[in-house]
Amino acid sequence: MLFRQFIDPESSTYTYLIASGSGREALIIDPVKERVSHYLAAIEQLNLKLVRAIDTHTHADHVTGLGDLREATGCITVMGEYTRAECVSEQVRDGDILDVDGILLQALYTPGHTDESFSLVLNAQKPEAVFTGDVLLIRGTGRTDFQNGDPAKSWDSIVNKLFRLPDDTLVHPAHDYKGWTVSSIGEEKRYNPRLAGKSLEEYTEIMRNLNLPDPKMMDIAVPANLSCGRPRKVA
Amino acid sequence: MLFRQFIDPESSTYTYLIASGSGREALIIDPVKERVSHYLAAIEQLNLKLVRAIDTHTHADHVTGLGDLREATGCITVMGEYTRAECVSEQVRDGDILDVDGILLQALYTPGHTDESFSLVLNAQKPEAVFTGDVLLIRGTGRTDFQNGDPAKSWDSIVNKLFRLPDDTLVHPAHDYKGWTVSSIGEEKRYNPRLAGKSLEEYTEIMRNLNLPDPKMMDIAVPANLSCGRPRKVA
Repeated sequence: MLFRQFIDPESSTYTYLIASGSGREALIIDPVKERVSHYLAAIEQLNLKLVRAIDTHTHADHVTGLGDLREATGCITVMGEYTRAECVSEQVRDGDILDVDGILLQALYTPGHTDESFSLVLNAQKPEAVFTGDVLLIRGTGRTDFQNGDPAKSWDSIVNKLFRLPDDTLVHPAHDYKGWTVSSIGEEKRYNPRLAGKSLEEYTEIMRNLNLPDPKMMDIAVPANLSCGRPRKVA
Repeated sequence: MLFRQFIDPESSTYTYLIASGSGREALIIDPVKERVSHYLAAIEQLNLKLVRAIDTHTHADHVTGLGDLREATGCITVMGEYTRAECVSEQVRDGDILDVDGILLQALYTPGHTDESFSLVLNAQKPEAVFTGDVLLIRGTGRTDFQNGDPAKSWDSIVNKLFRLPDDTLVHPAHDYKGWTVSSIGEEKRYNPRLAGKSLEEYTEIMRNLNLPDPKMMDIAVPANLSCGRPRKVA
């Protein structure tokens, strides 16, 4: 499998380009608008054909590259079924399987950070990795204080869905702010300080008291992302 | 194989923690002093025993974590035989093989960025990856204008040594400034703009005209790294 992780240093976003090999169809997860030229260079140089661009959720901290990638490559833009983005070509439901040239990604509805967040399980028959967006981060979890976020739903998504994956399933989140690039389900069960040994009540208390400032790009990013990062057309 | 890449956002340094599995001996390549607490957390949580900490060369842009890691774990500190660092426990020569619990890394002398730079080839019998330090970067090469750097030696190291590895050998450099995390020998042969289709003379011209400012930490980092990142003891 061809697997490439990209970093947007500005927003500490991780983006994933995946294909079954050079010369094959590819998909990309959580692309950032400002980095689209890099993804396109990699896609060309690795001799790939981008067929799907997926956002795990409506990001509040960066503008999505979905629209620009669709314009440049003709790829299908994908989000979960509860998205409010107006320009998504394909909406996936819980349990749906995306098949890109033999790369199988199963959609898993994991609300909590937002009410429309999905995770994607690679090879769900025998899970190898999960792309968790912002619901489960490395030794952290995505904030739950805007876009209909909810600590109890975050807990349920993580503990009752993601943590049922095998311990050796790799965790590929949409962000890390400490310089870590990957984790595993087993590690997060044991060492995530917000979850390990905690109850739902303790988790809710932690999440309600984070007191984080709004993401600096939130007022720009959320409206832009509801139109896939493309300027809204006014009739 | 357990493989973890860490990022130091300050210097865009990539550090690699490798072991044959959880509960095994591990090695680390190009650790950054300011991130040592993160490496130690990962080493503990992954149930590893750090036995070797390796610098590919004397870095000019960050202070090495070798000294702190040796103090914390008792690991052996490793550099190439031409290092001038005073506190290196083990010096490797061209062709030497480091065996850490079955992880085999062959030292390859690749001067050019500095006159004491080594690369490390993972499983040299059937090369899987190469850790290139700063001599070969992703779509770039390390500057050659200080620490006895030399464009002709850089060219020779890359074209006549690294590029003889199989095309599918993964390239893990010590830095990237564009958000790319990995490459391959085949990609760099074809798409590295300083090398693909270029002659030695053209490469030398490119490298002599980069006109880069000195790294901002150079005056601190180089002297500190000659003592493995630990303050020099004055008798």
